[in-house]
Amino acid sequence: MYIESIESPKDLKKLSTQELSALACEIREAIIKKVSACGGHLGSNLGVVELTIALHYVFDAPADKFVFDVSHQTYCHKILTGRKDAFLYEDQYKTVTGFSNPLESEYDLFTIGHTSTSVSLACGLAKARDLTGGKENVLAIIGDSSLDGGEAFEALNYAAELNSGLIVVINDNEMSIPENHGSLGRHLTELRESHGKCSDNFFRSIGFEYHLVENGNDIPSLITELSKTKGTDHPVAVHVCTQKGKGYAFAEENKEKWHWARPFNRDTGEFLSSVPKENYGSIISEHLLDLISKDPKLTVIAASTPICIGFDSEKRKRAGKQYIDVGIAEQNAVTMAAAIAKGGCKPVFATNSTFIQRAYDQIEQEMCIDQCPATMIVTHASVYGHFNDTHTGVYDIPLLGNIPGLTYLAPSNKEEYISMLDWSVSQNKVPVAIRVPWTGVTHADYDIPADYSKIAYKTVYKGKKVCFIALGGFFELGRRAADLFAEKTGIQPTLIDPMFISGVDEAALDGLTTDHEIVITLEDGILDGGFGSKIAGYYSDKSMKVLRFGFSGKIPRVYVPTDLMQKNQLTEKQIVERVLEIQ
Amino acid sequence: MYIESIESPKDLKKLSTQELSALACEIREAIIKKVSACGGHLGSNLGVVELTIALHYVFDAPADKFVFDVSHQTYCHKILTGRKDAFLYEDQYKTVTGFSNPLESEYDLFTIGHTSTSVSLACGLAKARDLTGGKENVLAIIGDSSLDGGEAFEALNYAAELNSGLIVVINDNEMSIPENHGSLGRHLTELRESHGKCSDNFFRSIGFEYHLVENGNDIPSLITELSKTKGTDHPVAVHVCTQKGKGYAFAEENKEKWHWARPFNRDTGEFLSSVPKENYGSIISEHLLDLISKDPKLTVIAASTPICIGFDSEKRKRAGKQYIDVGIAEQNAVTMAAAIAKGGCKPVFATNSTFIQRAYDQIEQEMCIDQCPATMIVTHASVYGHFNDTHTGVYDIPLLGNIPGLTYLAPSNKEEYISMLDWSVSQNKVPVAIRVPWTGVTHADYDIPADYSKIAYKTVYKGKKVCFIALGGFFELGRRAADLFAEKTGIQPTLIDPMFISGVDEAALDGLTTDHEIVITLEDGILDGGFGSKIAGYYSDKSMKVLRFGFSGKIPRVYVPTDLMQKNQLTEKQIVERVLEIQ
Repeated sequence: MYIESIESPKDLKKLSTQELSALACEIREAIIKKVSACGGHLGSNLGVVELTIALHYVFDAPADKFVFDVSHQTYCHKILTGRKDAFLYEDQYKTVTGFSNPLESEYDLFTIGHTSTSVSLACGLAKARDLTGGKENVLAIIGDSSLDGGEAFEALNYAAELNSGLIVVINDNEMSIPENHGSLGRHLTELRESHGKCSDNFFRSIGFEYHLVENGNDIPSLITELSKTKGTDHPVAVHVCTQKGKGYAFAEENKEKWHWARPFNRDTGEFLSSVPKENYGSIISEHLLDLISKDPKLTVIAASTPICIGFDSEKRKRAGKQYIDVGIAEQNAVTMAAAIAKGGCKPVFATNSTFIQRAYDQIEQEMCIDQCPATMIVTHASVYGHFNDTHTGVYDIPLLGNIPGLTYLAPSNKEEYISMLDWSVSQNKVPVAIRVPWTGVTHADYDIPADYSKIAYKTVYKGKKVCFIALGGFFELGRRAADLFAEKTGIQPTLIDPMFISGVDEAALDGLTTDHEIVITLEDGILDGGFGSKIAGYYSDKSMKVLRFGFSGKIPRVYVPTDLMQKNQLTEKQIVERVLEIQ
Repeated sequence: MYIESIESPKDLKKLSTQELSALACEIREAIIKKVSACGGHLGSNLGVVELTIALHYVFDAPADKFVFDVSHQTYCHKILTGRKDAFLYEDQYKTVTGFSNPLESEYDLFTIGHTSTSVSLACGLAKARDLTGGKENVLAIIGDSSLDGGEAFEALNYAAELNSGLIVVINDNEMSIPENHGSLGRHLTELRESHGKCSDNFFRSIGFEYHLVENGNDIPSLITELSKTKGTDHPVAVHVCTQKGKGYAFAEENKEKWHWARPFNRDTGEFLSSVPKENYGSIISEHLLDLISKDPKLTVIAASTPICIGFDSEKRKRAGKQYIDVGIAEQNAVTMAAAIAKGGCKPVFATNSTFIQRAYDQIEQEMCIDQCPATMIVTHASVYGHFNDTHTGVYDIPLLGNIPGLTYLAPSNKEEYISMLDWSVSQNKVPVAIRVPWTGVTHADYDIPADYSKIAYKTVYKGKKVCFIALGGFFELGRRAADLFAEKTGIQPTLIDPMFISGVDEAALDGLTTDHEIVITLEDGILDGGFGSKIAGYYSDKSMKVLRFGFSGKIPRVYVPTDLMQKNQLTEKQIVERVLEIQ
């Protein structure tokens, strides 16, 4: 086995191209084995094995600097840079994260998880190199679909201003997470099909020298072409055509399914765990398709993550022209949604909490200033949404909940979610965002309102002295804490499902002042600038005490949600203990 | 005069091209006259007079839909669409705003003030048209430098997916606010110089049909070329070369100075008012140039608004390669800054509060997760920063102040500002943002710390019962309110300059609990999720009362800052009255 002899990229350079190809097979095998056991990004990693080997063969990292876009495709890079054991030995599987990580290795320069930043980062490294008189090569390795994100273009457009060397490797596997969208993808196809000779070369138009590697899974071709770019004094684009999922037949066949895989049986290609039958993805996708069938003006918009609302390829087909995927381009998605609403239609844009961050400006400006009645569905907005610091789902309450003019709703169960969506698409007055609870599907055992045009909290049960205001996905936690409190003290506390993140129900809060002393707020998000801070702010000049439960800003690189709950005093036992302390 | 007969674009269509040219002269005269009296965007408006006339001549607004990017260049459009009196008669000057405004006219579809959104908005309108079976033309009119913003590319890249008609008019005046940056600008020059025939056409590469109007101030050429695009069923780009400032010699000569003009004497080209000699722009630019001269690693980064830190063209030249302008591309600016810091240099990125909104994700991810020690200077962060709802400077505290890992500082005077900047560029541990006070230059009459690595509030005077914690630009307001309170009650309150927006000084706040009953917070920003909400949150389970002063989210379309202060109970008299009420 060659793989066992690779302690650093230096060891690669001793191997012949034939030996490098054998090494690629071994690496591919290690990746498939580990991902089948642990889950992870499979297709993208299998596609770039040869490219990563060739990069480390031709260039001299860590002196030369590699920035991998999104960095979910760095498994082979990790194997080649001293971390092979994390892929070879089961007991070491958890010693590396799934993204580039400076805490692991000097070969990883940045902690990266969002798309389209690599060219910017490389421009910055190149500028620092030039200011300090360095001579190293700086490379961004970016997927074709990550080029859709506006920031990538901002950096490509800037690169020529550097008057200096920069290498951008485009890993063109003809896929985003779902199918590719956008005319740049079509242009890449033209370039492939014309052997790089079609007219109107995008990269040349913005000042890049252009190279094509037609078989990007062939190590000798890669080495030949990459070698030509070494030491460049100007911006160079290397267009490398790779096969996503290469080497695992199921992943070659169904690229979307195998972009990120749960643990699976490698012989049958079956996932070992199944998604709960009742989940918000399938619930809301069926409901949206029903709305689409009844209203030709309803349009669902995705930004490369349609699966966050359960829009798999079959459902996307059913939605037809009432479904839009703008690519990884949240800014365009939000602004288009605002204009579609202005044009008299009913846009529903859905994305993950961590990705909607890209569109704050567009939500504040295009959506809210003119009060365009669009709907945004915010998924994975929870400590249970993802499990690492680049993909937290706990920042969106301060981000969106303080935008003037946005109605930000937090359903705590299926019935509220559906009711809020129905209301949102039926009204034409205000922009609405809905924060999907991500702690499992629950059902209302109380009446659900049909109208959300005025802030009105729902009192689920009325008690005294202590009131639990438990938001969205933490409503059931609040209920359990309230029950435990009642059990421990014999006092029945009040329990409120507030439903509204933006603004406060002043009448409800005033009402509590007569027979309550403490209000407990619970939210599945960070405390700073969050929901509880609005309640605390409202009561700040009154005698009501407010205890806020949620997360501190200290999110570990990788975490287990239940551990983070514990650490932030968020079990019902911990909550009740603190309430009893303060009383 | 033709201008007086234009009630709507229909009236244009009766005129000959010669008459249209005469009309253009009249419109130009009206614009120069009004802007010389009131101030406003001059250069861009003078450049697009003929283009706007031709657009309204060829197309049929409001059935056909125009979206003007940034919309600061819509003066001629307003004149042609029923609002000429606002440019002809002094007593009506204030009846229109400086940007497109749906409250004024059905010809204005959106309230727009930020760049690079027009193509997205047009894509959304086109999609709504196609869903509802409409046939109208949809046009985005976008400046060359606005194409640098990533969102514009996201939308251009999406346009071909529409499979439908869309017209993008590029108003190429070869300028941003300062000089243009980026390779797309160079490509536009190539296109101009080659009469549109150079190889590797950017627009064609991403699926657009391409048209060139070499003299974009010639009405017949414009009409001929625009007419060819009417009724298109696919995306078309019309590259129109115009002269910024055309028709006013001073503005033709110095395009940057006349991008936005204060009231001026049209004969001499002199502004009627002068900027105070001591202003934060000149203070900080000289200080930064001094730092640059001493440290070759210090780099100033702008995103097309270098003037926000006083970097005029002469100072930009002095900074040499230690100055970067990335164009209107805040995302790239922040990410590059993070990487420049990682590369061992000292980046200082400066922009307006309202524009930093575009880069939330990059600040949270690239800057803060890896704790890249970059500095960001946030200017115009105040109700005095701008005067309309698309350019508020009052949202950045909730936006940036709640990002875990960001040290957000609020100097209240010149000495603190300089000291914080010096500290920030000398340390290599944390990313720092500095919120420049925008209520006039003041000076410290107390000791200023040199180290800001730990949160420590400055007690300026120690009193009892009541404590004023007055942030940044509102520190002097807090001091005046504290003095008035002492005068009215005979009780000397405590006055604190908190200096830190992010986090709270727990020791200082705990210290107040022994002999204070009320804490007053003041901030030049909205209250929701803001500075005061952190103080209120900290005291929420204690008996201290907190009164928060700042702005509600209700920002009028156009406002006078002192009026908005009054409306939000922010004069010292109003503040003290409310404190006395609660006591």
